Parts: sequence; C-alpha cells; structure tokens
Amino acid sequence: MNAESIRKLFEAVRGGKLSPDEAVERLRHLPFEDLGFAKVDHHRALRVGMPEVIFGQGKTPANLSQIFLRLSKQGGNVLATRADEKQFGAVKKRVPKAQYRALARAIVLQRDGKKYGKGTIAVVSAGTSDIPVAEEAVATAEIMGNDVQHLYDVGVAGIHRLLANRDTLTQARVIIVCAGMEGALPSVVGGLVGVPVIAVPTTVGYGAAFKGLAALLGMMNSCASNVSVVNIDNGFGAGYVASLINRLP
Amino acid sequence: MNAESIRKLFEAVRGGKLSPDEAVERLRHLPFEDLGFAKVDHHRALRVGMPEVIFGQGKTPANLSQIFLRLSKQGGNVLATRADEKQFGAVKKRVPKAQYRALARAIVLQRDGKKYGKGTIAVVSAGTSDIPVAEEAVATAEIMGNDVQHLYDVGVAGIHRLLANRDTLTQARVIIVCAGMEGALPSVVGGLVGVPVIAVPTTVGYGAAFKGLAALLGMMNSCASNVSVVNIDNGFGAGYVASLINRLP
Amino acid sequence: MNAESIRKLFEAVRGGKLSPDEAVERLRHLPFEDLGFAKVDHHRALRVGMPEVIFGQGKTPANLSQIFLRLSKQGGNVLATRADEKQFGAVKKRVPKAQYRALARAIVLQRDGKKYGKGTIAVVSAGTSDIPVAEEAVATAEIMGNDVQHLYDVGVAGIHRLLANRDTLTQARVIIVCAGMEGALPSVVGGLVGVPVIAVPTTVGYGAAFKGLAALLGMMNSCASNVSVVNIDNGFGAGYVASLINRLP
Amino acid sequence: MNAESIRKLFEAVRGGKLSPDEAVERLRHLPFEDLGFAKVDHHRALRVGMPEVIFGQGKTPANLSQIFLRLSKQGGNVLATRADEKQFGAVKKRVPKAQYRALARAIVLQRDGKKYGKGTIAVVSAGTSDIPVAEEAVATAEIMGNDVQHLYDVGVAGIHRLLANRDTLTQARVIIVCAGMEGALPSVVGGLVGVPVIAVPTTVGYGAAFKGLAALLGMMNSCASNVSVVNIDNGFGAGYVASLINRLP
Amino acid sequence: MNAESIRKLFEAVRGGKLSPDEAVERLRHLPFEDLGFAKVDHHRALRVGMPEVIFGQGKTPANLSQIFLRLSKQGGNVLATRADEKQFGAVKKRVPKAQYRALARAIVLQRDGKKYGKGTIAVVSAGTSDIPVAEEAVATAEIMGNDVQHLYDVGVAGIHRLLANRDTLTQARVIIVCAGMEGALPSVVGGLVGVPVIAVPTTVGYGAAFKGLAALLGMMNSCASNVSVVNIDNGFGAGYVASLINRLP
Amino acid sequence: MNAESIRKLFEAVRGGKLSPDEAVERLRHLPFEDLGFAKVDHHRALRVGMPEVIFGQGKTPANLSQIFLRLSKQGGNVLATRADEKQFGAVKKRVPKAQYRALARAIVLQRDGKKYGKGTIAVVSAGTSDIPVAEEAVATAEIMGNDVQHLYDVGVAGIHRLLANRDTLTQARVIIVCAGMEGALPSVVGGLVGVPVIAVPTTVGYGAAFKGLAALLGMMNSCASNVSVVNIDNGFGAGYVASLINRLP
Amino acid sequence: MNAESIRKLFEAVRGGKLSPDEAVERLRHLPFEDLGFAKVDHHRALRVGMPEVIFGQGKTPANLSQIFLRLSKQGGNVLATRADEKQFGAVKKRVPKAQYRALARAIVLQRDGKKYGKGTIAVVSAGTSDIPVAEEAVATAEIMGNDVQHLYDVGVAGIHRLLANRDTLTQARVIIVCAGMEGALPSVVGGLVGVPVIAVPTTVGYGAAFKGLAALLGMMNSCASNVSVVNIDNGFGAGYVASLINRLP
Amino acid sequence: MNAESIRKLFEAVRGGKLSPDEAVERLRHLPFEDLGFAKVDHHRALRVGMPEVIFGQGKTPANLSQIFLRLSKQGGNVLATRADEKQFGAVKKRVPKAQYRALARAIVLQRDGKKYGKGTIAVVSAGTSDIPVAEEAVATAEIMGNDVQHLYDVGVAGIHRLLANRDTLTQARVIIVCAGMEGALPSVVGGLVGVPVIAVPTTVGYGAAFKGLAALLGMMNSCASNVSVVNIDNGFGAGYVASLINRLP
Repeated sequence: MNAESIRKLFEAVRGGKLSPDEAVERLRHLPFEDLGFAKVDHHRALRVGMPEVIFGQGKTPANLSQIFLRLSKQGGNVLATRADEKQFGAVKKRVPKAQYRALARAIVLQRDGKKYGKGTIAVVSAGTSDIPVAEEAVATAEIMGNDVQHLYDVGVAGIHRLLANRDTLTQARVIIVCAGMEGALPSVVGGLVGVPVIAVPTTVGYGAAFKGLAALLGMMNSCASNVSVVNIDNGFGAGYVASLINRLP
Repeated sequence: MNAESIRKLFEAVRGGKLSPDEAVERLRHLPFEDLGFAKVDHHRALRVGMPEVIFGQGKTPANLSQIFLRLSKQGGNVLATRADEKQFGAVKKRVPKAQYRALARAIVLQRDGKKYGKGTIAVVSAGTSDIPVAEEAVATAEIMGNDVQHLYDVGVAGIHRLLANRDTLTQARVIIVCAGMEGALPSVVGGLVGVPVIAVPTTVGYGAAFKGLAALLGMMNSCASNVSVVNIDNGFGAGYVASLINRLP
Repeated sequence: MNAESIRKLFEAVRGGKLSPDEAVERLRHLPFEDLGFAKVDHHRALRVGMPEVIFGQGKTPANLSQIFLRLSKQGGNVLATRADEKQFGAVKKRVPKAQYRALARAIVLQRDGKKYGKGTIAVVSAGTSDIPVAEEAVATAEIMGNDVQHLYDVGVAGIHRLLANRDTLTQARVIIVCAGMEGALPSVVGGLVGVPVIAVPTTVGYGAAFKGLAALLGMMNSCASNVSVVNIDNGFGAGYVASLINRLP
Repeated sequence: MNAESIRKLFEAVRGGKLSPDEAVERLRHLPFEDLGFAKVDHHRALRVGMPEVIFGQGKTPANLSQIFLRLSKQGGNVLATRADEKQFGAVKKRVPKAQYRALARAIVLQRDGKKYGKGTIAVVSAGTSDIPVAEEAVATAEIMGNDVQHLYDVGVAGIHRLLANRDTLTQARVIIVCAGMEGALPSVVGGLVGVPVIAVPTTVGYGAAFKGLAALLGMMNSCASNVSVVNIDNGFGAGYVASLINRLP
Repeated sequence: MNAESIRKLFEAVRGGKLSPDEAVERLRHLPFEDLGFAKVDHHRALRVGMPEVIFGQGKTPANLSQIFLRLSKQGGNVLATRADEKQFGAVKKRVPKAQYRALARAIVLQRDGKKYGKGTIAVVSAGTSDIPVAEEAVATAEIMGNDVQHLYDVGVAGIHRLLANRDTLTQARVIIVCAGMEGALPSVVGGLVGVPVIAVPTTVGYGAAFKGLAALLGMMNSCASNVSVVNIDNGFGAGYVASLINRLP
Repeated sequence: MNAESIRKLFEAVRGGKLSPDEAVERLRHLPFEDLGFAKVDHHRALRVGMPEVIFGQGKTPANLSQIFLRLSKQGGNVLATRADEKQFGAVKKRVPKAQYRALARAIVLQRDGKKYGKGTIAVVSAGTSDIPVAEEAVATAEIMGNDVQHLYDVGVAGIHRLLANRDTLTQARVIIVCAGMEGALPSVVGGLVGVPVIAVPTTVGYGAAFKGLAALLGMMNSCASNVSVVNIDNGFGAGYVASLINRLP
Repeated sequence: MNAESIRKLFEAVRGGKLSPDEAVERLRHLPFEDLGFAKVDHHRALRVGMPEVIFGQGKTPANLSQIFLRLSKQGGNVLATRADEKQFGAVKKRVPKAQYRALARAIVLQRDGKKYGKGTIAVVSAGTSDIPVAEEAVATAEIMGNDVQHLYDVGVAGIHRLLANRDTLTQARVIIVCAGMEGALPSVVGGLVGVPVIAVPTTVGYGAAFKGLAALLGMMNSCASNVSVVNIDNGFGAGYVASLINRLP
Repeated sequence: MNAESIRKLFEAVRGGKLSPDEAVERLRHLPFEDLGFAKVDHHRALRVGMPEVIFGQGKTPANLSQIFLRLSKQGGNVLATRADEKQFGAVKKRVPKAQYRALARAIVLQRDGKKYGKGTIAVVSAGTSDIPVAEEAVATAEIMGNDVQHLYDVGVAGIHRLLANRDTLTQARVIIVCAGMEGALPSVVGGLVGVPVIAVPTTVGYGAAFKGLAALLGMMNSCASNVSVVNIDNGFGAGYVASLINRLP
C-alpha cells in the first residue's frame, strides 16, 4: 500500500536507519503512485465490477486474443467491443469461457455476476438497423451488473408503438436511446419520463444523414431537458454511463 | 392573345398585305411571348388566385411600398413577407386597404377571397418561437384561398399535447410543420397521418442548432415517408406548396 | 373493433358482471390500441393501396426474402428498394410472383392494380446517371396506383431538351425531379408549371458535389416557390409523397 | 382524477343512466388526458421539485415578466435563463420575491427549498470565461434542490490546478464540466473519477473554435467512458440532467 | 430549315391551301425546334471542333464502347474521360482508331486535327500526383485543337522551379493550374502573368485536405485577380474552358 | 532600364573602372528588379489599361481617400470597390474627377477610355438582389475598357425571361453570371452559349443558402462545361477575368 | 521549499515529535504542491522572461485594468492582447508605465528588457489587412525578449516582393507568417528557408474565406515540411511559440 | 558556382572577348539559377543531414523502388513514408542497405549518422492506435540526426500515466504529441513544459471524430500557448519541424 511504504520510510527515519535527507531523496525517487498520488485512484473503489474493455475493430484476431487473455488474468470481467466471429474464434481458443454476443458484436467474459445496478436500464432503438448499437449498450450494461430491458423498433414515425410500451420506459431508472436518421426518438422518450436519457446517434441512414451527423446534431438540440449525448454508434459509452448512473447509491 | 396576333399575321398574308418572307421576318421579331411560346405559360390558368409576392427583408419602406403599389395594380392579391411595421406604414399610405399581420411579419392585400383549396391546411409549430414562421405559412395559405387550422407549441418533448389534438391533424388535407432545434416534429406528425407533410426547419435554437442546419438535416432524414422539406424559415414556401396541393382538382 | 371491446365492457357493467372499479382496472390494462387510441390509426383508411416497403440495402438475400415473404402474406403490394439481382433471386424462390425492376433496383409484388391517382405523375431526371433514383420513384408511384410519365436526361445545360417536352410537364398533376451535381433542374421545372414539384438530390457528381450535398443545398434554395425536397437519392420518398398528393380527392 | 371520471361513467351505466353506446360515445369525446392516457404523466411524481423554466433570451421584459408571473402562480420554483438585468427589473415588479443571479444570467424564484439531491454536484469550468455557463448549471441544480460545489478556472493547460482540487471531484456524486476552446477538460476529469460526467461545450474561444463546434466535437470523442454531452452553452441542460441523476433513489 | 418550314406555312396560307386558323394550329403543333426556337442553337457554329464527350467512370466496358461507337459515327472527335485500360480494350475493338492516353486516363478519337486555338495553353501542375488531372486537361485541350505546353512539379514550396520556367508561362495565352493540398500555385502563377488562369483543385493530399476541399477554398480566395476555378479534379472542364478562351477570335 | 544598368556595369568593367570581382559584388547588391528579374514583369505590357484597385470595405474615408489619391497620381484608371457614399465624399474632395457608381458601390476614376476589349461582355444576374455584385462586375469591366451589356432578373424559375434575351447572350464574347440561392443560372446560360462563362455566387438568399455556399457549390458542379467560378460576391474578380479574356488578341 | 517542508517532517519524526503514522497523515494533508509535486513546475525556470498575459477582448476597461494592475505587481512583463484605446486608458491610470501598441491592439508593460532570443524572429504578412495579427506576434515576441524583423505586404500574387526580401527571411532563426484568403504564403516562405515557420491563418478575406477556414486548411496542407500552424488570428500564440524556439539554448 | 560563372562573364568583357551588349544578352539567357538567384538556396547549408523524402502511399513497389534508388545515389539519407512490406521488398532488392521500420511504415536508408540535434526530442502518443503516426515522427527525427525518447499510451483520461513520466517531458528540448479522438493531450503536455510542442492530430477515433477533424480543431484551439499543429496523421511533418527546431544553434 502507498501509505504503508511511506510509513516504513518514516519508521526507518525514526529508527535512525535513514537520515531525513536520505528519506527525502528516496521519497523523491519513489514511483509516482507511491508518492501519495494514489489519490488519483481514490475512486478505484467505485470501479468494482467495471470490465476491462478492448476496442476490437481493426485488431488482428491474434492481437485481440492476446490482449483479451492478458486482461482476463486480472480476474474481473472482460469486454471486447466491435469484434467479429473470426476474432472471437481466436479469443475462444485462449479464453475458453469467453462468449460471443453476435448482435452486439461483443466478446464477453463474465465472472463477476453481481448486480451493481439499483434499478433497470431500458435500452430503446428507433429502427431494426440500430440494434447492433443498442445491443452493444445492452452487453456493456449487463457485464457491469445491471438488469436491462430492451425496446426495439419504436421509431417516432409510428409513435403508437412507443406509447404502447411506456411501462418499460417509466419503470427504468435510466434510459438509453439509439437512433439514426433524424435522431428524434430521444426527445420523445425524454418527454415521457423523468429520468436521465442517454442518447446514442447511429450511422443508420443515407444521404443527408451524413454518417450520423444529422442524428448527432438533432440529439444535441433535443427539446427534452433530460437528454445527454455520446458519440455516434457509441453503444459502449452509453451502456457505461448508464451503468455508472444506475449504481449510484 | 398570342394565337390572335399570329392569326392576324396569317390573315395579312392571305390578304396579300404581307409576303410570306415578310411574315417570317415579323414572326422572328415579335416579342418572345407572342411567338407561340406562351406555352411556357399554359399553366397560367393554374395560377388563378396566386398572389404577387415581395420578399420584404432588406428593402427600404419607400422601395417596398412602391413595388407593392405597382403589383396591387394588377388587380389580384398581394403579399409582402418579412416586412416590419415601418414598411407597412409606408405601404399603408399608398395602398390603404393593405393589412399587416404582425405575427406573420406579412403585409397582405386580399381582394380575391375565393376558396381555391379543397380541404383544410393544418399548420403546426413545435414551439412558440416557431410561430412567426408558422404564421407566414398561414398568411400565405389564406391569401391563396385556403381554410387553415393552426396547432402551436406541440413539440415532441410533450407528445401528449400533440396526441390530444390529432383531430386537427387527421382532418387536414395537407399539413405544414414548423420546428427548430432537433426538427423532430414532422416525423411524428408524418407518422400520425396519411397526407403530405411539408416540413419547415426554423432557426430557433442555439449552439449546435447551427441556425437551422440541425433541424434541416433532421427533416431531410425523416423516417416518415410522407415528409418533404423547404428552406429554413421558409414559411412562405411551405404555404405556397401546401396551397398548390390543396387546390389540386 | 375498439369501440366494440369497450362497449362490451360497459355492457358487462350494466349486466352486473363487473363492478365499475373492476371495469376501470380492466380498461387500464387493455392493450393500448383498444383504449380508444386507435384514433392513432384513423388514417389507416387513407393507406389503402400503399405498399409494404423494405429497405433492401445491406440485408442478406436470405434475410430480405424472409421479410418479403412475411409482408407478402398481408395480401397487399410489397416493395423492396435498393435491392440487387442476388437478393431478387432469393425472393423469387419464396414469392414467385415477385418481379425485379432492374433500373430501379426494386423488387415489386403488385396485386392491387387499382388506380388511386387522380392524374399523372411526371418523373424527370437531369442526367442518365440519375435514372436509378428516378426509376425508384417511378416504381414506387406505380405500385401505389399511379400513371407515371418519365422524362430523362433533360438537364439544364441543354435547356431546349426540357422545353421541347413541356407538354409532359404541363399535363402532370405532380412532378418529381431528380438531379445531382448542381441540382438546378427543379427550379427550372418549377418555373414552368403550376403544380407541386418534389425535388430529389442525387449523389451523381464528384469533387465539390460532396455526395449530393451541393444538389441538396441548391434545391433547398430553389427560387421556384413550388419546390419541396426529400433526402439525397430518396426516389422512394419522392414517389411516396407524390402518390399521396396525386390521390388527394 | 382520471380514473374517477371514468369510474363515474361506469357507475352511470350500471345505474342505467347511460346506455353502453352512449357511454362509449362520451368516452370518445372526453378530453384526452381523461381517457386513461394520464399514464403519459405517470412520471409526474418524479417531477416534484422541478422548476418551471423560461428561456429568457430574445423575450421583451414585459413578455418575460408576464410569463414569469403566470408560472409563479403554480406554486413551485421558477427559473428564467439567459435573462438580463432589464428583464429582471420587469419581473421584480410583478414577482417581488424573484432574485437575480447575475453571473448565471438567471432569474430565480425559489419556494421549495427541499434537498432532493442525494449527494453533491460538482460544477467545473476550464476558464473564467466559461463561468456564466457554469453558473447557469449551478443555478439550475440549486433550484432543483441540490448541494453544489464549484471549481473554476482549472483548465488542462495547468493540470496541477485541477489535481490540487481532486477532493472536490472525488466527493461529488455527479460532475458537470464546462469548457470552450479545445474542450479537453471533461476527458481529464472523467479519468479522475468514477461517476457520471456531463460535459458542456461553450462558445468561449475564437477562430477555429467555430463558436463551440471544436469543443463539442472534442467532448463527443472523449476518451473517458463516463462522459456524455449537452448542447453548446447549455448550462441549464447540464444542471437539469445532473439533478435528475443526483435525485435517483 | 426552320425559317423554311414556317415560310412554307405562310405560302400555303397565301395559296389558300390553309386557313389562318389551320395554320395557327399547325404552328402550335410543330416540333419545338421548328418554331423558330432553333435560336437556342445559334451558337452551334461556335461548337465546331468540340469533341463529343463521355464521362467514363462507373460505366461498364461494354456500355462505354457502345456509346463511344455511336458518338464516333457523328464524324467529329470523341473523348472519353476517366477511362481505364479495360474500357479502352472494349472501345478499341469497336473503334480501332481510338487511342488511349494512359496518364490522362482518356480515350481519344481525333479526326479533326485543325488548330482552333490562337495561341498556346500552358498546363501547370504543383506535384507529380496532380499529373493525371493535368493530363486530362492536356488531352481535352489538344483534341479541341490547341497547342499545349505543360510544366509539371513546380509547386510553391520550391518556388525557384516555377520561376525558372516563367517563359512557358509568359508565352501562354491562357493557363491551367492543377494543385492539391493547399492549392496555392494558381495565386503565384496568377501573379506572374497577365492572362486568364483556370485553377483546378485536386484530391491530392490527405487529412485536412478533405479530398480537395482545402485546395478548392484556397483557389476561390486567390489573391490574384485573374484566377477562376473549376470543380475538384475537373481537368476536362479546365481544358474545355481554356480551349473556348483560346479560340476566341 | 534594367538591361541598361547592367550594361553600364559591364562597360565599367570593360573600361577598367571595376574589377570583375567588384562587379559581381555590386551585381549581388543591386536591387532585385535590376537583376534581370524584371522578367517577372515581362507581362506588364499586358497590364496596360488595367486599373489600380482598392478594396474599400473596412477602410476609413480618410484612409481610403489617401490611398485613392496616391494611386491616382500614377496616371491610370483607379477603382475602389465596396465603397460607400461617405467614403466617396472623402475621395471626391481629394480627387474631384472621381465618380461614384452607387449600384456597384464603386468609386471610379477613368482617364484611359480606350477600348481594350475585342467584343462585348454580357453581365447577367438571377435576381434584383444580385445587382450590386453584377454592377461591380460591370464597373470593373468598363474601367478596363470593355463594352458591357447587362441582363438582370432573369433567374431560372422564369426561364422564358432568359430565353427572350438570348440575343444578348449569343452576341457576347464572354459572359458573367451572378446568382445567389441555388446558383443555377450559370449552368443554363452556359448551355445556351459557346463562349466562356464566369460564374459569381452571391450571398443572396437565407437559411440553407449559408451565405453563398449553396450557390458556390452549385456553380462548382455546373453541368455546363464552359463555366468557371470566382469567389462569393466577387463581382470585381469576374469583371477582371472577363476583361482579360476579352482583350486577348 | 517543498523538499524543506518534507525534510522537517522527517526531522520531527526522528526527534520523536511525530509518530510515523501522524507523519503519514500530515503528508496526506499537505497542500498538493508541497507533496513533491512541484515537479509540475520544474520548467518554471524556463519561464523566465515570459510575460503575464491577458486576453483583453470582451473585458470591461475597469475589469481589464484591475487584472493588469494585479499581474503587474508580480514584477515581470505584462501583455494584454486584443485591447482597444478605451481599455488602455483605464490601464494607463492604474499602471502609468503601460504602453499601447495600436497596430497590435496590445497593452504592454515591459520591465525585463533582457534579450532571451538567440537570433532574429521574422514576422511576415501577406497583405496590409493581416498587419494587426502580425503586429500582435511582433509585440509578443518583443516583450519576450527577441529581436524582430517584419516584412509586410509580400503576398504570393506578387512573388517578386517576397523574393526581393529574401535576406530578411534567410537571416531569421524562426519565421512567423500571417496570411488570410488562400493562406499560401507560409508554403512559399517555407520553401525558401531551412528554419521553422509558424503559420497564422487570419480572418482576412470574404465569401469562401469562411472567416479564416480557407487559410487554416491551406496552411495545414502546406507542401513545405517546415510549417506548423496556430489558431486563426492567433498572433500571440505564434509570437509565443517562436519565442520559445528562439530562446532554446 | 554561380558567382564564378558570372565572374567569368565579367572577365570575358574585361578581356574584350565579349561586348557589354553581348554579355547582357548572355546574362539574360543564362539558366535561372546562375543568375545570382542561387540566393534562393542560401539555406541549403541548413539542409545538411536532411533526408530525401518519398511519400510512399499509392506508389507501386516498382515505382517506389526506382525513385528510392535514384535518391539514394545522391549520397545522403533517404526516407520513404507510408510504405508497406511489399514496397520495402522491392526497395530492398535495389538498395540492399535500406531498412524497414514496420511500426512507422517507413523505409529508411541512413548513411549520415551524425547527431545534428542539440537535445532530445520527446514523441508522445495518447493511445496505442496513434503509435504508427508517432513512430513516423520518431523515424523522421532519427534519420535527421536526433536523440528521440518516446512515451506512448498516456492519454488524458488516465492523467497519472502522463504525470508519472514528466521527467521524459521536462528533459526534452522539443516535444511531439500525437492524439486522435478529442486531441486533448497536447494542451496538457503543453501546460507541463516550457518548450515548443508540435501537435499531430490523428485519424484515430470514429463517429464524430470525423477522420481527425475533431482532434485537429481541438489542437488549433489549445489553451496552452506553446502548441502549434501539423496536418492530420502527419508524423513526418512533426518530426521534420521538431528536427529543425532541435538543430537550431
């Protein structure tokens, strides 16, 4: 422990084994984290149950599986996002208990199954094409110890589909909404509930959707005050933020 | 009449007053519209009841009133958009029957009060700040001979306000929806009705609204298939298109 | 029927089979649409003749054919846009009566051949490269029961080609104009007619065309007042809006 | 009550005062919210302590004070954002208990002083020019019943200023970070804590800051996973979202 | 001839073979171009020596060769731009005299070898990567009957290379300058000469070059007053405009 | 003369007044332009009749008049663009022969009235609001010694207005087209003529016109091959380029 | 001193005045900078001669003068950028030795006149309108102890002006280049020298200059490898970076 | 030598072998660089130790190896950036001493191993994905004769990683910082040191990273005054600028 190693220094001084000057010098050369700067990590405790995360996209199967193995040795949950079947094959060989969530394009290794979330996280998607992003959020929230409800294909052009499922919304402690195209769903959902809504613009759409820009701008300008936004297609980030909110004591 | 003037040419030839060569030469030098090119205007008949329109913004009161007077002499309705009280004062002096619609920032001179529209045009606005644009659409539609119903401040973050007024929507033959910020309202309205929806992005909003760009992109990507879009703040254009649709026989 | 199921509830109360409290409770738990909210769909009647639509792009042949089959069981017309030959092969096996419109990249199943449109829809394209988008509009309008006339390769740099075909334009009840590059054609067409013009920017062009952005902005700023705009390459949307306009009673 | 008015309907049927048909008819014509659709507002309970909010910018003093007065009659807290001294003068005359928070450019009327927040909200600003936005967040969070700590002028170019105040950060239950220019602060703060961080890009900066766009994009791409973002200069939205999070039971 | 067919109409009237009314009717139904509107093509004469042009990119070899053959039958020069070896193979089979200019990615069929240009066109490129665009300009200008001088790899970061070749510049009657990256070369060249400079931004570059946007904006803002600009990578357009200028009598 | 001063150096060497080494040293220290580098200005001859130009915008009347006076002393024509009445007042006092062209917002001092242009320059504007830009082009072309014809308010939405004036277009040796909004006019004009067309996007328009960006992009993508483009509102640049073209021998 | 205060802690432990545990606790509560973290400021030494800087724009004269006074009490040089005459008046009253550099819009208080720079910094501007930005760089470099040479109005369209002054460039140890419009000058200068070039895009220009964006993009894509770029109009930043480079030992 | 050849000219004049007129004529026709304009290259001396550089991307192996061979014959160091294994294979055959630095994607031929740098260049990367860009900077700096220290994966979301390595930063004479996503690292590093920081935005990231635009804008707006920026992914440029700075005497 940091305090411990520093205390030993003081004891050595008290015991006359070190002069104060020598002690200061040693203190100066101790590695950073021992210098009391572990404060930086005072919030580590809050991190219990948080997975080690790998952004899989662009990594070779060999590379990804190697990182996955190394992280898995730390004993906690491991999550690889944006991963394909081929990458999973390589991981599976090294970490047999790893599982592939195809819709979410995620490789998960879940050992800590404790529920850290106080309530339910609802994950909503506007269309069926937004589901991969939504499922990434689901996988993230689940591996971080949350109960998750999902509600897919309830875009604003058929508002009755959404309204027919308000119960799912009103029972959630925090809601994630994934939408491409005009990105209007978070505003509507935000207006129906009194809890925080995390909006995820997706690249779904074409033409003037400009790869998610239209949805992103729409969500930034939401007329519902309880909406905040993460990056385009960032299902992981939404699941992460929602999990942090849901585990607040 | 064009046909008439040309027929006279033929008659002069038949009567020997003109040689064919002279006739060809005259034909060549007749003003364009007499050349049979009135076909260009074959659709003039469709224009009955359409107002003469002036874009008032940036014009001096003197200038605007002069143009207004000249157009008013053609006997039909006259509409000046983006006009202020001061401009109206100048117009009023020259054209006493002109009226000012303050909310719409429009000066109107309505002589032809005939109803050309077959049904009702509904004009919807998301927020109260969108009302000037909406009212410009209303003023345009009314001066073009339409019954207009308006429904204001029914933005998507309070979806029940919109749903409580579905009757207004479902009874309309064509709907105009004005919205700034995320511009989501046309999608929701579009999903509730089976008639054409004209979406008008507005400059309402700040920051990432980028002066209507967010709303414009949102509307271009509407997931409702019955939505088409006009320029930012172009209430006039929306009212004009809606009027054309509504008068289709 | 909704009214019916609710009336039964009232009758059960009158008949003493349910107490008012029990009835209220049941009412609360009835599925949404039975709650009188079927008003949401009051416009269903207007939807007669509208096709079920699938956005084919990105779907596997297996996936697309499965959806197509399911929708085809609802008895109406089915339209799959952005579909290729391979996808059509898969659909054909399951739905033998489906047909492929190669130029439009559309798979159609047309059972309801009734003419819902009151007049003709003209579909105009600026260049030959815009034809796939134009044909998507044609296919959409035809499957929705419209007479369609098309007029291709009449871009503004050769204005006489357009003028030589004004008859097609002036006889239409609504006009769709597809153009890439500078997107100027809708303005010129709009100036020649007195009916609504639906403009479709296309991705045709290169460099500063920025994948349809130049055409989109051009069309949004059309100096012709009868133009409204749909998304880049959205031939389907244009055909849909035009069909709604054309079937207005 | 909704249920009540509907129960009376059932009782009237049971009592023979209404036939089932008449009851169905009445049900159909009841105002929307009475139709059981109050479910829409089931979350109203969650709204206790939330202020009525007015966006002051662009409103005349007369107009703003009138709205303020009307909202103040509902008995709860009232908040007018983006308000200036002149507007406050007008409000003060009508609502003498209203107060002006000059730094926040906010007029507040606080009657409900209950603490709804479970912990502390920290509001951090990168520079001194970001303070108005930060203070808007503070004012919002306070009127919604939260303990707020602020930490200003701790931008990333002098990282020791931030590190010297980690205690403020680590003791917060949710953190708001306001920054213009490169918008880097939320990432650094996000890395130091394990709680949700709401990032607010500001228009502070010039040139390539492009009125907050640079900061907005920076924050959307934060490498810290616990960051979500609201609109440029939207201190109110950040305070609102943070308050919702902080009051989660 | 147009005039001829119309004169015959007049003669028929004079001869009593047609009544004036019948003549007007016939006039109305004459094809457009006979209506005297051939004026549209009065400038055809100016077009002598201009090639028929095909934009090759995206066309199948079969398709391209077919169009090429058809156009070649009109007897003039034919130019296919953005064409590859494979497309040329197909053309070659049908039009054996066609030639491939590999650097220019152009297929040319030159029959009319007359010099229409009054002076020399200089084609300048900033780097070696800009050469394909420059060569497209060269091929275009040559097939349109111009003497062309080229000057490649004289970018502004080695200004002495350009200065050492001022003779080429000062002897030209019109100059084309192709540059990617910062697009600065046209300004420097423009300052060295007193003749029109046609600037062509290219997609050469990476990162903040944004596919030619940086060069395009740079050229639009040229501090040299004799510079005008064509589309990104539009070597053809530059060659075409330069040829028109160079052939001015 | 440069050659002269260098010859004198050689003569001094021949005469023994200077050693070769001294001569080389002097050569090294001669001002740049004497070093033979006047080649840079070999094209000066081409500049005969070109005005001295001042960009007036943002300059104080005192400042502008001072510069104007100084330039007027060089004996040629002087042109101040973007100048207002107040600036003109100051100039008038110092240079009594200066004249103000109000529509063009230009101050001109024309002494050299020689016609350098070989033909006529036509200046076309789409709307009346584009006239200031068009007039700037006219003023520039006239002071550079050209015959100018203008044709205003012939935008593409009323194509017959343009067609009725084709003579003006077909008689021009070079054409300038000024247009805001969708910027479509240069394409149409380009298609009607066989001479170079200089397109000038203007800031006329609102909303998605984005201060001339829409028109700029439109013109860059013109489907007419004879169009090149100058900066937004740059009437001067267009007039300058057109003048250079028109004076080509 | 940090080391000192910590040594005292150790001595207190050795002297038995503190137990090791108490010492650890005190260490934990020492202010951050005493914890050895003063390393953060190890580079302070490098800061000798660096001015205290205030961004004047938007500050009231009272406010600015107050900050200026406070900073002036630290004994070093003080620089206020983007300051106007009025602000200077207020500063002058409180700090009589402050001076105003009008062209640079800077208020300076120079006490430390030592030359820290090893060589000369050249500041180059493309046009006269770029001079305020260039002068801000000059003022910054001078107050940081550098010899500065400036070279103004040597834009690329008159390349001989630049070439005639190469000596100024080749004698500099580091060069700052300010340019608006197409921002091409840094590339040309960069190609002429072998030292670092700091490029400053300016807002000079109009239309497609987009407030410095064109120049910024141009400079980012400079084909000269020795160019790096600072923010639009950021003369101060350029002067600061150049000063750091120039003082490197 | 230039001076030499000119001196010979003078001597020929003195010796009567040439008349002054003949000498002037010859002078006029001497190649540019002999005309004394070698001043342009006065800075060549500064270029000692600078590599010949090839941008490998897009070049065929045959092409690249040919250029590499030619440049290697000049005797100095050669660097090919953005090169792959296949290209290296081709180079290796022709230039056996060439080496491939895989991480940097660079082919290097280092003959001149002299240390030109006065101090150490530190190269810092925010994440592991930024390493290829960072390594390109390292390879560039090393082949230009510098000692380089690298510090990777120290992004701002884990600020302690950076702080723990401050020594590397504070000991450097110039620092290169590569970062994608929000691009915040240069600001933090800039605040920790008193030396010039060259920032390199990278394309690392997705969604609103917009291929490096977010990082680029962030870095342009750095709140640290000692930061200047090069193009996206331009590791070479950063290494080059840093090398120039580091070799300043």
